[in-house]
Amino acid sequence: MSATGLRDYLDGPHKAARDVVRDGLAEHAGLLDAGLRLPRDEYRDQVLAMLQQITADGHPGRGFPKEYGGQGDLGGFIAGFETLAFGDLSLMVKAGVQFGLFAGAILQLGTTRHHEQYLADAINGRLLGCFAMTETGHGSNVQALGTTATYDPSTQEFVIHTPDAAARKDYIGNAARHGRMAAVFAQLLVGGETHGVHCLMVPIRSEDGDPLPGVTLTDCGPKLGLNGVDNGRIVFDQVRVPRTALLDRYAQVDADGTYTSEIENPDRRFFTMLGTLVQGRVSVGGAAINASKVALTIAIRYAGRRRQFGAPGSAEEALLLDYRMHQRRLLPLLARTYALHFAQAELVAEFVRLFDSEGRTEDDEHDRRALEAQAAGTKALGTWHATEAIQMCREACGGAGYLAENRLAGLKADTDVFTTFEGDNTVLLQLVAKGLLTGYRESFGKLDPLGTARFIAAQAVEIAVEKTALRTLVERLRDVVPNRNDAADPDAGLRDDAYHCGMVRFREEHMLAGVARRLKAGIDAGIEPFEVFNRCQDHVIAAGRAHVDRVVLEAFLAGVQGAPEGETRERLKELYDLHALATIEAERAWYIEHGRLSGPRSKAVTALVNGLCAQVRPHADDLVDAFGVPGAAVDVPMVVPSQHE
Amino acid sequence: MSATGLRDYLDGPHKAARDVVRDGLAEHAGLLDAGLRLPRDEYRDQVLAMLQQITADGHPGRGFPKEYGGQGDLGGFIAGFETLAFGDLSLMVKAGVQFGLFAGAILQLGTTRHHEQYLADAINGRLLGCFAMTETGHGSNVQALGTTATYDPSTQEFVIHTPDAAARKDYIGNAARHGRMAAVFAQLLVGGETHGVHCLMVPIRSEDGDPLPGVTLTDCGPKLGLNGVDNGRIVFDQVRVPRTALLDRYAQVDADGTYTSEIENPDRRFFTMLGTLVQGRVSVGGAAINASKVALTIAIRYAGRRRQFGAPGSAEEALLLDYRMHQRRLLPLLARTYALHFAQAELVAEFVRLFDSEGRTEDDEHDRRALEAQAAGTKALGTWHATEAIQMCREACGGAGYLAENRLAGLKADTDVFTTFEGDNTVLLQLVAKGLLTGYRESFGKLDPLGTARFIAAQAVEIAVEKTALRTLVERLRDVVPNRNDAADPDAGLRDDAYHCGMVRFREEHMLAGVARRLKAGIDAGIEPFEVFNRCQDHVIAAGRAHVDRVVLEAFLAGVQGAPEGETRERLKELYDLHALATIEAERAWYIEHGRLSGPRSKAVTALVNGLCAQVRPHADDLVDAFGVPGAAVDVPMVVPSQHE
Repeated sequence: MSATGLRDYLDGPHKAARDVVRDGLAEHAGLLDAGLRLPRDEYRDQVLAMLQQITADGHPGRGFPKEYGGQGDLGGFIAGFETLAFGDLSLMVKAGVQFGLFAGAILQLGTTRHHEQYLADAINGRLLGCFAMTETGHGSNVQALGTTATYDPSTQEFVIHTPDAAARKDYIGNAARHGRMAAVFAQLLVGGETHGVHCLMVPIRSEDGDPLPGVTLTDCGPKLGLNGVDNGRIVFDQVRVPRTALLDRYAQVDADGTYTSEIENPDRRFFTMLGTLVQGRVSVGGAAINASKVALTIAIRYAGRRRQFGAPGSAEEALLLDYRMHQRRLLPLLARTYALHFAQAELVAEFVRLFDSEGRTEDDEHDRRALEAQAAGTKALGTWHATEAIQMCREACGGAGYLAENRLAGLKADTDVFTTFEGDNTVLLQLVAKGLLTGYRESFGKLDPLGTARFIAAQAVEIAVEKTALRTLVERLRDVVPNRNDAADPDAGLRDDAYHCGMVRFREEHMLAGVARRLKAGIDAGIEPFEVFNRCQDHVIAAGRAHVDRVVLEAFLAGVQGAPEGETRERLKELYDLHALATIEAERAWYIEHGRLSGPRSKAVTALVNGLCAQVRPHADDLVDAFGVPGAAVDVPMVVPSQHE
Repeated sequence: MSATGLRDYLDGPHKAARDVVRDGLAEHAGLLDAGLRLPRDEYRDQVLAMLQQITADGHPGRGFPKEYGGQGDLGGFIAGFETLAFGDLSLMVKAGVQFGLFAGAILQLGTTRHHEQYLADAINGRLLGCFAMTETGHGSNVQALGTTATYDPSTQEFVIHTPDAAARKDYIGNAARHGRMAAVFAQLLVGGETHGVHCLMVPIRSEDGDPLPGVTLTDCGPKLGLNGVDNGRIVFDQVRVPRTALLDRYAQVDADGTYTSEIENPDRRFFTMLGTLVQGRVSVGGAAINASKVALTIAIRYAGRRRQFGAPGSAEEALLLDYRMHQRRLLPLLARTYALHFAQAELVAEFVRLFDSEGRTEDDEHDRRALEAQAAGTKALGTWHATEAIQMCREACGGAGYLAENRLAGLKADTDVFTTFEGDNTVLLQLVAKGLLTGYRESFGKLDPLGTARFIAAQAVEIAVEKTALRTLVERLRDVVPNRNDAADPDAGLRDDAYHCGMVRFREEHMLAGVARRLKAGIDAGIEPFEVFNRCQDHVIAAGRAHVDRVVLEAFLAGVQGAPEGETRERLKELYDLHALATIEAERAWYIEHGRLSGPRSKAVTALVNGLCAQVRPHADDLVDAFGVPGAAVDVPMVVPSQHE
């Protein structure tokens, strides 16, 4: 097989943007062990220097409007960001903070005044900034942040203040060392009335690096990974900023202290603002998927060279990758990485469709909320996948995998936080389920159990519709998804993609309908909404996951169908089958419990997963080559010993 | 409940030894962030200083014979070692290398001459040493090591040599900086004949720290964790040591070059030698389980203080630990930690029974091999549990869990390699299954697929016996383990411990018999033994795991039954039920496939796991208090903020 053909296909429409970052990667490969060689502050400064380098190479500019020095190519910008994940992840995260979050907040939440004042400097790295949302006391429930921004009409200023320790801004990238300004999320108080969380531009450090009066900046100290990013804490003591510091796209305060917003409902207003920042989640998911590619490239190449224990009749010991258990550990993860790659590509395409580079958005609110859910789901599954895949790669490389020189250690440590930042994964899957259950109608993003449970209960009609839909679906799937009476020929149709899609769709619909029924029954029975919600929280999250599993599987299938005919498509179909059956196998207990798999057929699924691992194995090297991870990122001593000894 | 009563019960017969280490922990708590504060070599030197401190406190002495300054209390020694895992894990691993592996090899493989020459110095830390077994090319298959020890009768010396890069000793603790001598495992060549791997005492560094002539020592460099341990590489270039350097308990070479051993079969000889070193695996498993206790103590205390999102009718947000999903993530892991604790205590008791502190062993070879299997299995499950539990704790603490100051980061990084050192876990589970399949008769420890498959095939009688046993078992279990016809009352007997034990035993026996049948059928069909073995490798490993699951469950049950009556026993029974049902739930697909669970009963198991989580929740703080982890190890800022702000 030609790995190049497959690689071109995987690179897709933003190949050029990816290649620019790939080419630059050799330059910043020196960072890959900087965290081990250098004191933390020096590592941070080197990451900053490299940030300026990729800025010069045009990385951030790609994603911003032309009038501020950009190229207006949002898809290419995200593709480039994902590709940064092949290299040092501190650099990637620092770029994400500076260009995605800080400049992104200015672009999305600000108006022309702010764009003109800040955007060019933010994009070219002259104005380093923070995205100061998370507080010590509030990470997931950001609607309840404690920081206040109180309008003082006498001076036409906002007073930014941290009322207590829980309201301290925490884990803020760029805060400990480099950031000069922060986009601060705070409860807006105008004329004694609170209007919920809004974002304001607040200077925090002078040109020469000292904290400004009233601002206390401390270092979060060493972390498990990402030590090239200067995460810090910010405390504000009555810090005054001009009225124009408010990023006022969605709400304005005039000189007299009159608050106006075209979005009347404060929940809807807040989650509309948050929704414009979806790019962060889109980007983190893609980065995590690409970090998995690096780890799998290393571990699969190693397993194709490393021998241990004898095969009879052979002078040499057997290759690790020829052992069934080793195939079982690595190859389904390879297949899932491909699946997630295609799901991510679909997500980025939809993101680009809805957000053009001018910072304006389409009016279709439903589509935007569906996009937010898709981003949340892909982020959750992509980042959990990275944690699992990199861990498995580390173990599959034994002691060598534990040495920093072989990169898996750093990948593991750096990516670990992805499962909890830009939204905790369990919370994100709740969000996904909630969106599906409410048809994206209730204030999307708001996660309080009370509201969700009551909303569901109120939507009896809606649920009835869903039930009907489910009944139709079950009938429709009866032929596609055989039930227990398949014992005569348990293998029949196991590689049929309609079967796979039918199975995952059945699971999704069945679980969602089950959650809806349970929520409604609980409310109807007069049980406390929190208790109603809590009793099926595991079910809610599993339903969210089932939905994303289905979306990912369908994206992979579309990827197979769109691939160039011939060997590329054949290889992808094999991998797709492996992914589909491994997905069904992982949930086979549920399918059996719900009459969708017989015992014999379930065993046939397992046998076929084994068989597909053996079929994929001879192509494993080509399949990781097609990821196109540059040599600088994967030519580690355990894989390429001759270069290092 | 009184956490103290439960804690005393958990501490068991070696409470005094545990308390000595607990008391010392405050002293070396300073190490906990040394890796973050100090350059690597300084961290290593501080770990060494602390090693001398615990030596002065009597830790290593406890485990060695009285005539060399010890106390002859092997059980207390291991309990103390496990307790070191509450503190800095580099110190624990360095102690393991020095006292467990290096001094242990001298004690177990040497004779009086070696004991008198080295043991006192090794125990009191004057002679720092390495355990030089693993090579770059051979970690799991240590019978195939490449280093040679060739006898030269003309000078009555052995010549130690590294023939190629793959034979380089690798990842060797104490080698990069502190070790002055190494217990080197090498192929013994005498009179042109090879006698397999033996161990020799080889000086590697002078008193002032320089490598000795012919010895090249290099640093493995930074690792994911355990950076306070100086792992290094050793290359020997024709290094000469006297004939007496051979640790000659099991094989001797006389001055003329005549090789003698009371164990004729070279495989049996090698694996007998290896078997005496089982203490390493016993200790690592226990350490991993204790590291999980630290992480769970931190994460459960945090979840009992941290609030997020509102519960209706309450002014405060809800505690994380009141969310079902959070309970689901943490409490079954807490239960499994208890289960493994009791399994480890049983293992240590059996170890002490078979190995007394004089270094002599009982003659019962079968028991010793069964012990080796038990150690391998407990090590595999205990270390995988640590990886899973600590990861879950990290995620459950969000961004705060990622900060080094909250300890989960270090625990994660330091324990990660436990799954692959002292035997790769997948290889160890193969060993467990093999021992069961062969009744510990074939050379235990040897893992080549050829031998295993042929042996099984040859044991037709044996397998027939097993089949008969299985048939009897199935009949016996018919009443205990209800089959699909339980739909009328799916909850019946779910908390009956005979039911749990019947289920896990059925699974174990069924899987082992299945593996035996498949191996025999493959060999009988004339398929290559490697291929025969490889086709069911996943099945072999799953069978090994099923066995250990059963052993662990039964150990927990015995622990419940032996507990003081009243609340302590009630609490333990609740946790035991949670563990038992979570274990069955995790394998419910298999049970359904094999007709041992109906769909409704499977759902009832899941519902009961949820219910038991809610029952355990109010006692969660007491249950982690009972682990007795000293405050110095768990009073981190996110749990005890007032101390730090």
